[in-house]
Amino acid sequence: MIIVLKPKISRPQENAVLKEIKRLGYIPHIMRGVARTVIGAIGDERTHQSLETLTAWPQVETVMPVQKRYKLVSREAHPSNSVVHAGNVAIGGKKFQVMAGPCSVESEKQLMSTALAVQAAGATILRGGAFKPRTSPYEFQGLGEKGLKLLAKARRETGMPVITELLSEDHAEMVAEYADILQIGTRNAQNFQLLIAAAKTGKPVLLKRGMSMRIEEWMLAGEYVLSNENPNLLFCERGIRTFETYTRNTLDLSAIPIIKLESHCPVVVDPSQGAGRAELVSAMCKGAVAMGADALLVEVHPHPADAWSDGAQQVTPAAFARLMTELKPLITAVGRT
Amino acid sequence: MIIVLKPKISRPQENAVLKEIKRLGYIPHIMRGVARTVIGAIGDERTHQSLETLTAWPQVETVMPVQKRYKLVSREAHPSNSVVHAGNVAIGGKKFQVMAGPCSVESEKQLMSTALAVQAAGATILRGGAFKPRTSPYEFQGLGEKGLKLLAKARRETGMPVITELLSEDHAEMVAEYADILQIGTRNAQNFQLLIAAAKTGKPVLLKRGMSMRIEEWMLAGEYVLSNENPNLLFCERGIRTFETYTRNTLDLSAIPIIKLESHCPVVVDPSQGAGRAELVSAMCKGAVAMGADALLVEVHPHPADAWSDGAQQVTPAAFARLMTELKPLITAVGRT
Amino acid sequence: MIIVLKPKISRPQENAVLKEIKRLGYIPHIMRGVARTVIGAIGDERTHQSLETLTAWPQVETVMPVQKRYKLVSREAHPSNSVVHAGNVAIGGKKFQVMAGPCSVESEKQLMSTALAVQAAGATILRGGAFKPRTSPYEFQGLGEKGLKLLAKARRETGMPVITELLSEDHAEMVAEYADILQIGTRNAQNFQLLIAAAKTGKPVLLKRGMSMRIEEWMLAGEYVLSNENPNLLFCERGIRTFETYTRNTLDLSAIPIIKLESHCPVVVDPSQGAGRAELVSAMCKGAVAMGADALLVEVHPHPADAWSDGAQQVTPAAFARLMTELKPLITAVGRT
Amino acid sequence: MIIVLKPKISRPQENAVLKEIKRLGYIPHIMRGVARTVIGAIGDERTHQSLETLTAWPQVETVMPVQKRYKLVSREAHPSNSVVHAGNVAIGGKKFQVMAGPCSVESEKQLMSTALAVQAAGATILRGGAFKPRTSPYEFQGLGEKGLKLLAKARRETGMPVITELLSEDHAEMVAEYADILQIGTRNAQNFQLLIAAAKTGKPVLLKRGMSMRIEEWMLAGEYVLSNENPNLLFCERGIRTFETYTRNTLDLSAIPIIKLESHCPVVVDPSQGAGRAELVSAMCKGAVAMGADALLVEVHPHPADAWSDGAQQVTPAAFARLMTELKPLITAVGRT
Repeated sequence: MIIVLKPKISRPQENAVLKEIKRLGYIPHIMRGVARTVIGAIGDERTHQSLETLTAWPQVETVMPVQKRYKLVSREAHPSNSVVHAGNVAIGGKKFQVMAGPCSVESEKQLMSTALAVQAAGATILRGGAFKPRTSPYEFQGLGEKGLKLLAKARRETGMPVITELLSEDHAEMVAEYADILQIGTRNAQNFQLLIAAAKTGKPVLLKRGMSMRIEEWMLAGEYVLSNENPNLLFCERGIRTFETYTRNTLDLSAIPIIKLESHCPVVVDPSQGAGRAELVSAMCKGAVAMGADALLVEVHPHPADAWSDGAQQVTPAAFARLMTELKPLITAVGRT
Repeated sequence: MIIVLKPKISRPQENAVLKEIKRLGYIPHIMRGVARTVIGAIGDERTHQSLETLTAWPQVETVMPVQKRYKLVSREAHPSNSVVHAGNVAIGGKKFQVMAGPCSVESEKQLMSTALAVQAAGATILRGGAFKPRTSPYEFQGLGEKGLKLLAKARRETGMPVITELLSEDHAEMVAEYADILQIGTRNAQNFQLLIAAAKTGKPVLLKRGMSMRIEEWMLAGEYVLSNENPNLLFCERGIRTFETYTRNTLDLSAIPIIKLESHCPVVVDPSQGAGRAELVSAMCKGAVAMGADALLVEVHPHPADAWSDGAQQVTPAAFARLMTELKPLITAVGRT
Repeated sequence: MIIVLKPKISRPQENAVLKEIKRLGYIPHIMRGVARTVIGAIGDERTHQSLETLTAWPQVETVMPVQKRYKLVSREAHPSNSVVHAGNVAIGGKKFQVMAGPCSVESEKQLMSTALAVQAAGATILRGGAFKPRTSPYEFQGLGEKGLKLLAKARRETGMPVITELLSEDHAEMVAEYADILQIGTRNAQNFQLLIAAAKTGKPVLLKRGMSMRIEEWMLAGEYVLSNENPNLLFCERGIRTFETYTRNTLDLSAIPIIKLESHCPVVVDPSQGAGRAELVSAMCKGAVAMGADALLVEVHPHPADAWSDGAQQVTPAAFARLMTELKPLITAVGRT
Repeated sequence: MIIVLKPKISRPQENAVLKEIKRLGYIPHIMRGVARTVIGAIGDERTHQSLETLTAWPQVETVMPVQKRYKLVSREAHPSNSVVHAGNVAIGGKKFQVMAGPCSVESEKQLMSTALAVQAAGATILRGGAFKPRTSPYEFQGLGEKGLKLLAKARRETGMPVITELLSEDHAEMVAEYADILQIGTRNAQNFQLLIAAAKTGKPVLLKRGMSMRIEEWMLAGEYVLSNENPNLLFCERGIRTFETYTRNTLDLSAIPIIKLESHCPVVVDPSQGAGRAELVSAMCKGAVAMGADALLVEVHPHPADAWSDGAQQVTPAAFARLMTELKPLITAVGRT
């Protein structure tokens, strides 16, 4: 920790800060500069109490942490890339993976036709929502366990592992029974009780970035999974909230190289939510591949305009097949298969 | 709903849109403008399925909803101001209320000394966190039920009703047993399962605004409380996330008159989180009073630099007493007591 | 400057950093912490070249400045409040000032009727745009010099000093001839050539905050005025750009106490642009008064729906008179006249 | 234009709105819905005065434009891609172009060594700043005309056309004499006088996106160039301001497909400003290529840590050469040369 004192502080005021630093277990180290006195507080910031409370002291101008606050998700802790296994599929290895399927599971027919179509086009994991977090209580909230059963059936028939969203701590065991990957949605990205419940099932957890989550906060939310004995964490960028209104969210593709730099966990990109418009999905997928993502999560629906949720951002099976064809040269160009 | 077609659309493409609008239960109404054809879809947007899925159609440029999506929280539904009762305290009436206390309950001594001090200065409701959502899993997570028991004890001794945060659906009943108002924190503002669980306890629910929640989304989250048979909802502005880094969040005081315009529910302001710096808390409280807030929620700690969480933004009992004195002429100036 | 090295850096890599710090005129000071080595670089950050370029070095993790970069606008440089004089009006003193008038000058009749009405209601400075920066080239761009002449005439007839926007370096002298205060608009807040041209006229400069300007950047833009021999600077908060779409901008009233804390310059609040809706203007004005602003800048138009620009956010003379009456008790409550 | 009336409006109030719509030259068209009455105002929104002023009327809830406000930059106006020529280089055609060079021109040696190095690595246009907009008046402001002369010399010796920033209307002719492309920086993106001055030189104009500019505003700023008889406009995405602090700005790569969809003008990406960290530049360049950009603008400096401005985000000539090699397979994969 670095503590910057305000200008013209008396020696007793300075001593009070030094005493407090020692009381909290750090060794203070004074540097007298031209305009400010700066104190370095030496000690492990992750095991000692934070000194940020010193900001409340009238003689203190700022307190700046030196260490990063995340441990287990960091590359320092695990220098090589982690590979997460879901069913027979490995995410984070040389093979680029594509998760595809409808936003919401609506019926057996809708799910099965989509599953077969995306598999034929090259998808390796089936996505589909059974529990849907909806901004309004008057919108369709998902089929619930019935949807999970349909997903499990689609898995049996196609062999594809299944990813679906977990909304409630109370459902963790039930969802884990049917799904291969538990998805934590953007609105729950800092619902730490849900993260802990998901981690404890032992299943891989895909953690979507919160709408206004800084990279550091996202990594710390991931830390809730890894510190609960579950090493199978996937980060999923899906767009952040900005002032721009042309798209529903601003897909922050630079999160890919940043997470790769800071962490060992695989990175997935969900362009559907970022685009909010099916016609932009294709370009975003290409960018994600080029920038080093390990997998995509794409919403596909047999008849998007019919969809019970988020129809505007789902692509048709035909458009998805075209997308997969267009992605191939890029996947090769970045040295993946 | 208003559907704007792209320029130069063929008649069969247009007819397909009309057919879909009818299929979803609306009556279409065509207007041929100079550059675009616009279709009005007449029907109740809150009972019919949304037409926003039409955005996925190639012939459609935009779909614009006409109605507001919230019902029960809106002033249309309930033209006069709602008053919410917690213990013997009424929030939303002529009397301006102040909720104050420590960010986290740390010990009986810390809580009781703070409670007595804030009561002496004029606070009418005691706040204190027993379960704390922390960005990092390595930070202090609250005393849990032990903290709730201390709050209940403080209530007995001071007569002040108690507000505390609810973090987990599984704790709803337990927290409701000890507390008079359940607080839903900013990270859980769209944790709809938690909102439903809180609503079902019947206790008043204070809903903090999510970090990047638009007013409409906040109102819709509130709708989850009212539509679960609980009319006792308080909206609490606590700062939104912007590009500014001087303060931790940007307190959006304009939310006060907007909520007052759109809704009948009382508005509370929490300047502690918005300021992130105790020295700015006072000015923000004055602004909140002047702009029509019904209550304040202020973090007070006997020794802020010692606090186990968020020390930087807590004020001392002495500063709080000064603040209360400074607020008085403003409270009078806006015609409250 | 504080330089944090990455973990596990070799001694020669560390020495290279130390050598560079010395070469740039600072004295390095090493602190070896538990997880990182930190170097304090002692020297005046405002006269030496920045060390931030070290971030490009592979062995460096972060570089953190310790000093604030603004000098002349800071309270350290001038501890007491500055008072800026425009005509016979003093801004920043005990008397609260109100600048009011139409967004654009449209005609003599429109300007004169508004000027007389706002003066009767208590305004002391007349505002009106002669050159208008418009998002689209197809919108009304202002009456130009003809508008300036009308403003000068209104000043003669009412005795009120006049504030108007300066858009182009080439107009600086002409606008300064007619106006008492030069307004720099939000889109030009970092048009440094314009700031220099405005400063050189010697007239007071009102600097609106840029749409996404951090406090520090705003202060530094103000520094362009003061460092060009013009001490008459007014900061004007008018709303920042955020994700919220209910209002056109988010009025950041917390900027008032922050500027007061950091700087000696007066603070003006323009709620018209922040609200984008006349019905919210009143509450925002009250908040501004309560939080310590020195003046308001309010758009008033005899027939807002007729206005040639920004009609939605202008209030009628009658609404303005009501507003002035409502503000009085608040102005008294904060100890001003 | 679509005008939504508030619920329960009287017939005379409705008639007043209809009258005003007619007065402004539109033909009103009424639709009575379930909860609201909606009026379509038929007429060309780009030649008639806007109806948005109606928002100020008490009986009006919202006013929604139907048409896009930009004309000449839109794909509707010019369906095929525009190609912009600078010297012997065509931007927007099949060949992918790379503009590279130092942030600031510092000396002949620095510029020439960088120019030769980037040319050898495959760059086709030389960038370099002679006038620098700096957040603080105490930072290096560029070499001015001396820098322009060095750029002209580098052009003679390498044959590469030159791009440099224009800061002041007063310099437009001088800069146009030396440069092949005039760059308008992010802080001046809505400095309309500067855009007009740049357009009038007839030279191609590269318009960087403002820090918080919506796509529509950016297109409208471009409209200032095209409507001043200059068809040679390049849009340049360089990162927008968000809440994220890991990078200096958030590079919004989705702007590429959006601009391609809405406009015929070429799109350039400047990853240096978006990344703020040289180590992320490479990934961002790859994303830009994959998503359909026509050119890159990359800051290269022989010794980044020595640079007089923005050292942290400049790459070395060696890193640039590596980058160019890495980009090749991606450029081929998207069908360009």
